Amino acid sequence: MYDGRLARCRSLMKMAGVDLLALTPGPNMTYMTGFMEEPGERLLTSLIPREGEPLFLVPELYEEQVAGSTWIDSLRVWKDSGDPMKELATAVAGLVAGGKVALDTRMWARFVFMFQQIVPASQLVDASMIMDELRVVKGEEEIETMRRGTKATDRAMEMVIDALKTGMSEREVAEVIRSSLMRCGADAPSFMPIASSGPNGSQPHYRFGDRRLRNGDSVVLDFGGLFSGYYTDVTRTVFLGGVEREQERVYNLVKEANEAAVAAAKAGTPAQEVDRAARLIIEEGGYGNSFIHRTGHGIGLEVHEEPYIVDGNRRPLEDGMTFSVEPGIYLPGRFGVRIENIVQVEGGRARRFDQYTRDLQVI
Amino acid sequence: MYDGRLARCRSLMKMAGVDLLALTPGPNMTYMTGFMEEPGERLLTSLIPREGEPLFLVPELYEEQVAGSTWIDSLRVWKDSGDPMKELATAVAGLVAGGKVALDTRMWARFVFMFQQIVPASQLVDASMIMDELRVVKGEEEIETMRRGTKATDRAMEMVIDALKTGMSEREVAEVIRSSLMRCGADAPSFMPIASSGPNGSQPHYRFGDRRLRNGDSVVLDFGGLFSGYYTDVTRTVFLGGVEREQERVYNLVKEANEAAVAAAKAGTPAQEVDRAARLIIEEGGYGNSFIHRTGHGIGLEVHEEPYIVDGNRRPLEDGMTFSVEPGIYLPGRFGVRIENIVQVEGGRARRFDQYTRDLQVI
Repeated sequence: MYDGRLARCRSLMKMAGVDLLALTPGPNMTYMTGFMEEPGERLLTSLIPREGEPLFLVPELYEEQVAGSTWIDSLRVWKDSGDPMKELATAVAGLVAGGKVALDTRMWARFVFMFQQIVPASQLVDASMIMDELRVVKGEEEIETMRRGTKATDRAMEMVIDALKTGMSEREVAEVIRSSLMRCGADAPSFMPIASSGPNGSQPHYRFGDRRLRNGDSVVLDFGGLFSGYYTDVTRTVFLGGVEREQERVYNLVKEANEAAVAAAKAGTPAQEVDRAARLIIEEGGYGNSFIHRTGHGIGLEVHEEPYIVDGNRRPLEDGMTFSVEPGIYLPGRFGVRIENIVQVEGGRARRFDQYTRDLQVI
Repeated sequence: MYDGRLARCRSLMKMAGVDLLALTPGPNMTYMTGFMEEPGERLLTSLIPREGEPLFLVPELYEEQVAGSTWIDSLRVWKDSGDPMKELATAVAGLVAGGKVALDTRMWARFVFMFQQIVPASQLVDASMIMDELRVVKGEEEIETMRRGTKATDRAMEMVIDALKTGMSEREVAEVIRSSLMRCGADAPSFMPIASSGPNGSQPHYRFGDRRLRNGDSVVLDFGGLFSGYYTDVTRTVFLGGVEREQERVYNLVKEANEAAVAAAKAGTPAQEVDRAARLIIEEGGYGNSFIHRTGHGIGLEVHEEPYIVDGNRRPLEDGMTFSVEPGIYLPGRFGVRIENIVQVEGGRARRFDQYTRDLQVI
């Protein structure tokens, strides 16, 4: 599997005129090398030259761990008491002189500045033109992992919604989300869960607070888990005790927008058309100014990645792409509604991974 | 509080000849602006000029959330369908022309490249020379938050160790860690918890796997939580069923090294002396080559920050600094031992925040 990725990576490097690719801990390193870690302050990078042997520059405390999880044989180890900059200079000198060096799009500025000092004659560019292209169409194993993860997330959603009741605090709901995800086999939550109730629901990325659920609230539940390196991300909105006429109208509009977007997501269709399909429904319903974000984002080794389902993205969808479809309506001081599915384009059409009901639910 | 931080920040900017400071979501933005978020692919930055009004460049979906959590009045909002680069160019043009621009040390390369294009006449530098200096000595409120968080983490450690038994998988232990942290009031775990048993303990940053605990294992438990924006981080190592002679010897050596380091951590002492104190004990015990990382790291809004307790760091410790003391011994294929306290320098001496026993425990 890694052989194929390396070959495709190098052909993209060649097309882009890139001589060296430097990756940092995160999705790109995981994809290319198999080693998975959170970013940190110690310089840990995999260096992939267009020709010749790739190598890993590794802090000593990671040596055994990296060696045990990657196919790259050449490890250059530095000690906490040593000088990572000197090690990097030596490592890079053997791989490139001048030319173009592509840096991981997530590389921290502190390391970008190191590269600037070490290869002042090189042009430094964003590696996303290579890595996004490589990763945007998923392989079968990746799809299978994501499908399994989303099924587990469906079960977690059911457990969470079954546990909801008035009087619980958002924080308690967030705890139920976390424990349900773990019980369903996640290695970690994808991100700090969102359990926003009532007026808090109008902030799309609100997390949770101490507000208690009341009758009449809408509750936006947005979470996902990490499964064998791949993220899931789903959202449902439910109502407590009853639903007012406008809440119901808004809910049905968001649901309709979700369905229009999924129907529009066909192989060959530009990504922005999916956004337009959802936006049109919401605009015609009179809430255009309250749909304050794009319709979706690709998902895989990152929670947000290509293809972005956003106005301006003319890239045609292809079989094997996976992304979210998540229109929403946000009314400050009142409430918010969002419904998010993860879909895969397969056989030309979008199919949902998550199957938990999208019907209006009053708890 | 933020007034004082801004004034100190600007005087450091002046000393460093920095005209503009650009921060990204993460510890520095939280510290200066009060707004807390995970880093992401959307450009979200606070721009602090040496003189004049600071401003926030914010994606539309964050507008309400940022406005509700920061003292900065001037918000420049961009839509998902817009061009963040153009917005940034306009925002920056009003604040700086040429000069020196300091970028958050954690800013992603993609945004560093944006700044390069927008202010090609400016010198871009790492903002850590300003931000590390600002944050390295904690204020009273920060200390109080960290003390409270570490107390809660002590309780979680007790719950976790009480729950350990042979037959449990490392993954199950990790779940107990997470749920205990949440029950003790954490907003999230500090990082993916470490529950490494037997031979897995020799990889300092191993997380957890499917291995089941057996009699004779050492189990390294390393975790912490996020409490009101501040991280905790503690480690204990326990033994199951019994302890072999070498395990006991190694444990006592690590404990002795921990105590020597805490005793050495006095105001005015260079940070590296604390590392030396721990290392000397372990070297004299014959395990010098098996202590493969620095003795500690500062902690606060980041899990790892200044002051690093590492050979080569001559910076004198001061009252109000908070850091970990965590010597360890790692024997590949066999086992590992680490004991980690969080300490604060106060009244000239290091005091431990966490109080859970460091005595050898056999479960």
